Parts: sequence; C-alpha cells; structure tokens
Amino acid sequence: MAVYTEVSDDELARFIVPYGIGEVLSYKGIAEGVENSNFLLRTTEGTFILTLYEKRVNAADLPFFLGLMEHLAARGITCPLPVKNTAGEALGTLCGRPAAIITFLEGMWTRRPQVVHCAELGRALAGFHAAGQDFPLKRANALSVSGWRPLAEQAGSRADDVMPGLAREIVDELDFIEQAWPHGLPQGVIHADLFPDNVFFLGQKLSGLIDFYFACNDTLAYDLAICLNAWCFEPDGAFNTTKARALLSAYHAARPLSEAECQALPLLLRGSALRFLLTRLVDWLAVPPGALVKPKDPLEYWKKLRFHRSVTDISAYGWTP
Amino acid sequence: MAVYTEVSDDELARFIVPYGIGEVLSYKGIAEGVENSNFLLRTTEGTFILTLYEKRVNAADLPFFLGLMEHLAARGITCPLPVKNTAGEALGTLCGRPAAIITFLEGMWTRRPQVVHCAELGRALAGFHAAGQDFPLKRANALSVSGWRPLAEQAGSRADDVMPGLAREIVDELDFIEQAWPHGLPQGVIHADLFPDNVFFLGQKLSGLIDFYFACNDTLAYDLAICLNAWCFEPDGAFNTTKARALLSAYHAARPLSEAECQALPLLLRGSALRFLLTRLVDWLAVPPGALVKPKDPLEYWKKLRFHRSVTDISAYGWTP
Repeated sequence: MAVYTEVSDDELARFIVPYGIGEVLSYKGIAEGVENSNFLLRTTEGTFILTLYEKRVNAADLPFFLGLMEHLAARGITCPLPVKNTAGEALGTLCGRPAAIITFLEGMWTRRPQVVHCAELGRALAGFHAAGQDFPLKRANALSVSGWRPLAEQAGSRADDVMPGLAREIVDELDFIEQAWPHGLPQGVIHADLFPDNVFFLGQKLSGLIDFYFACNDTLAYDLAICLNAWCFEPDGAFNTTKARALLSAYHAARPLSEAECQALPLLLRGSALRFLLTRLVDWLAVPPGALVKPKDPLEYWKKLRFHRSVTDISAYGWTP
Repeated sequence: MAVYTEVSDDELARFIVPYGIGEVLSYKGIAEGVENSNFLLRTTEGTFILTLYEKRVNAADLPFFLGLMEHLAARGITCPLPVKNTAGEALGTLCGRPAAIITFLEGMWTRRPQVVHCAELGRALAGFHAAGQDFPLKRANALSVSGWRPLAEQAGSRADDVMPGLAREIVDELDFIEQAWPHGLPQGVIHADLFPDNVFFLGQKLSGLIDFYFACNDTLAYDLAICLNAWCFEPDGAFNTTKARALLSAYHAARPLSEAECQALPLLLRGSALRFLLTRLVDWLAVPPGALVKPKDPLEYWKKLRFHRSVTDISAYGWTP
C-alpha cells in the first residue's frame, strides 16, 4: 500500500498542463507498489497512472526505467508508456519529487496462476529479453550476487529471531553461491521482479507487463529463475512441475536456452530464492512490533531455497530441453 | 489508506456477473476511506467503486446507507448510485463481507477550500437536508451527545499524555454540553462527516457528495456546525469569517435557519468540535508507538473547541440572519 505523498488538486492541475492530456477529472491514490506513491488519474483525454518517486528510488535511475518502457513499447511489448511534456521530457517534479505520467494498462494480475498463465508468462519474458537486447542504457543490478552479503550482514544474528539457525544457514549458502555463481551466461535487460502482481491478464491472455523499477542488466536466465520461484510454488510450498514445464518450454520456444543456462538453472534458482529471502528478512526486521502493515514472510523463500538445494539437474523442474 | 481485504480476480469476476455491468477490465485498491476496503473497478460497461464493508461497519446499517444514496440521487443530489443485481439487491457478499458496487463520481476534493467552495458547500448541504426529509428509513446517531461520555471514559486519564490537563477539560466540557445541548431544533437526515475529502469539485463547481457511512437522523444545524469546523479554520488555527459567512449565507438562502438554530449554533459548534476531538483522541491512543500510519491530530479539534468557547453569539462567525 503506497501513498506517501499527499498531492493537492491545485498542484496536480498545474503539473499536468505541459503534458497535453486535458484537464483533471479525478485522481485516487492506489494501494499498489511499495516504493512510490501512485495515483490513478482520469483526465478529459483518458486514464493514466501518476507516479511520484519516493526516496528509496535513485533519481539517477529514472531515465533508464522510463526509457526502457518507451523502448519496449516501440518493440511491441505491451507495457505502460511514459507521456512526454511539451519539452519532450517524461520526467517532471511534483511536490518536490521526481514524477511521471504513464498510460494506464487494462488487465488484472492473477492471484492463483494456472498452467496457462505460466505459459503466457514464459512467452512474454522471452519477448521482453529479445526486445531489451538493443536498449542502449545500462543499469547494474544492485541486488545481484555481490549485493547479498551486505544484506545478510544487515540482518546479522537477528535472522535467528525469525527462525533459529537461519543466520548460519544464510552465511553457509552465501559462501557456496558466491563461489559457484555462473558468469558468462547470456546477458541483457532483465525485469528482475516479474511476480504475478506485475503481469496483467484479460481472461487467460497476458495483456501487459508493469513495474520496471527493478529492471537492470544481468543474466537473462536469472530472470527466468525469479519467475519460476514466484509462479510455480503452490501455497502449501509444493513445487508444481506442470507450471514450471509450461513456463520453461514457452520461454525456450521463443528464446532457446543454451546448455550452460540449463545446467546453471538450479543454482540460479537458489540464488534468486536467497535474494528474496534476504530482502524480505531485512524488511521484516525493520518493521516495529505491533505495526499495522505486515511485511512479506521471509521464510516462504527459505523453504523455496531448501527445495532447490535438493535439486541436481533441470529435469527436477519437469522439463528438459 | 484502506484495503483490508484482498479480492482475487476469480472471485471478483464471479461476483459482478449478476450486476450486469460487463466484464472486469481492471481493479485497483484505493487509498481512501478508513473503515472499508475500496477498489476502483473498470469494466467493459464503465467505471465503478467496489466497497467491501469491514467489521467496523454494522451490516444492519447498510440498507440505510445504500437506500439513502438511491433516494438522494433520485432527488437530483449528485452522489454515487448503488448498482443493483438481477435480484434487485444492491448488497452482495464478497470474500465473506457485505459488498456493493456504486457508480464512480468524477471530481476532486479540494485540499485548500476557498470562499467559493464554502458557498457551494452551503448550497449543497441545504439541498441534501431538503432531499432527505422524506427518506423513510431511520438511523440514530451513535456519535451524538449521548455517545461522547463513553468515548471520554475510554480515553480516561490517558488524554493527559496528549496534552497535560486535557482529561479534566474534556470532563468539564461534557458536563456543560450535556446539560445545555439543544433539543427540539429541526431534525432530519444529516451527512455527519462532510469534510473536504467527501465533497468533489470540478473547477470551482461542486460535482458531488460521497461517503454516507456516518449519515443518520439528527439535528440539521449540527451538520452545518460539523461543516463550519471542517471548512472554515485555516491551517494556522485562525477562524476565517469570510468562509463561514459564505457557507452560512448560502445554506440559509436555500434552507432558512430559524432563530433558535442561530442561537444554538455556538453550542453546536462546541459539541461538534468535542465529538471529533474525542474520536480522534481514542484513535490516537489506540495506535501503537512507532506505527507507520499516523492518526489525525486530536488537538486540532481541542483548539477549535477553545475558540467556540469564547463565542457568545452567531455574529462571531461573520454572519447574522
């Protein structure tokens, strides 16, 4: 839930003038996104999302994010398109914060992904990776393998408050992953956060991808690993190989995975599970006891990590190339 | 900010079928209202608000609230209109909660009300009171004078944590108001919460009233007192008599205030200030220290109350009949 900044009607009316999208008819703060303030904005010209970038977002990254959406949209990926003002800029300033207006995308994220959704996702992810290949801007992944140890140190022994022994497990896992992490796999722009709430469907058809605020340059197959972790576990913790097969085979049909990528996949899945375990753990420990907003459960990703530790090759995920 | 219940896409798709408003295109939780979960819902037929009534709302009151909106809309008051399903019912059940779909009203609430807005409000409030006269359902005001002492007792001596001496001040004020409270003034349906965020404007023209979930039968001029307190104080605490004059004279032009109502107004304003002081105080004391969501400042209403104590007749508010 996220509306950190109160925008007044007067300020908003002034802000949108140079964007040429008519007059404001209404705007409502929306309870989506955890990093920024988002408003659903209706004007005489249409419906838009207004985003105010809060302090957790590095303003220097915004041209990358907004430029990427424009780049992808021009290559046929359905995603929100930043609206430019008369000066040709997408980025403006509202209430002292960087702010942008992007087009509104119809669709709903699916709370209970089915096999058909996973197949759609695989196809879309491969299309996203292909479309990003000639994007000229670069952004390092601050949450890739080199960023994990600092997170583990931030949590420190307090990880044991969440689960006894967790601090030790994390350090052991880090020691292993840091030395084993694959380098030299195909690189490109990855979404890095393609959870179900960032993928819209109309019926069973994927209608768009949103929220590019973790996008960066990194290993393409690592993005696939993030998706497998986010989409193919059941609420009871079981890994659903039918969903994974649908995701992997649809991805592979559009961008064939190399042998090296297939071999690395179990490790990439461990790494992806560790990354979300660590960020959730830090968020969990940062919330004061008794707070109304409960952060996501870090142990969900600990269980996923443990599953991948038991895997020896890609066939455990229900698919082989 | 309010989305207490997570609604799945499947559940929503099933829920809306009997309402005959087409297929869901999108829905977003919106950060408005503090009692219920609200979603902005777009379908192939239009834009709507979906509300799930959470436990702070008494389900037995819902026919009053929804019936009132329908009654008012039929009498030309611009307000959201509940959509009825094939069985002729506005109220359904979603995620185990009473739920309703109401039409979406364009407009924005004004963060900095000006004199012109206050005049519009006065006219609209009188129209609301007139339109409510023949509404057949009844609902007592649980937050009228008899409901204040229990709130004061709930806060008890902890009121002094907010401001030393406040507990004593509240009891003294209650003792006075309970004996002096006027009875026999014109009664009717009041909105009871017509703060700026519940009044929409397009430009300087009032475009609608929303949020009828405190509406009840009570003294009409008490509703006017709630508005004067909510709209006519400046951020620095000063009472703006120009705004009050605009509000009072526009109201009076549409529904003339009796001499008894005019005489009672300073007391009704003290009572209204005490009511919001008490509910804010109870909410303030209920929030754990360190919580992310900060409740509204009770002392804002303590200062308003103190101002009205110094008033001897209605002319202090910049207007006489």
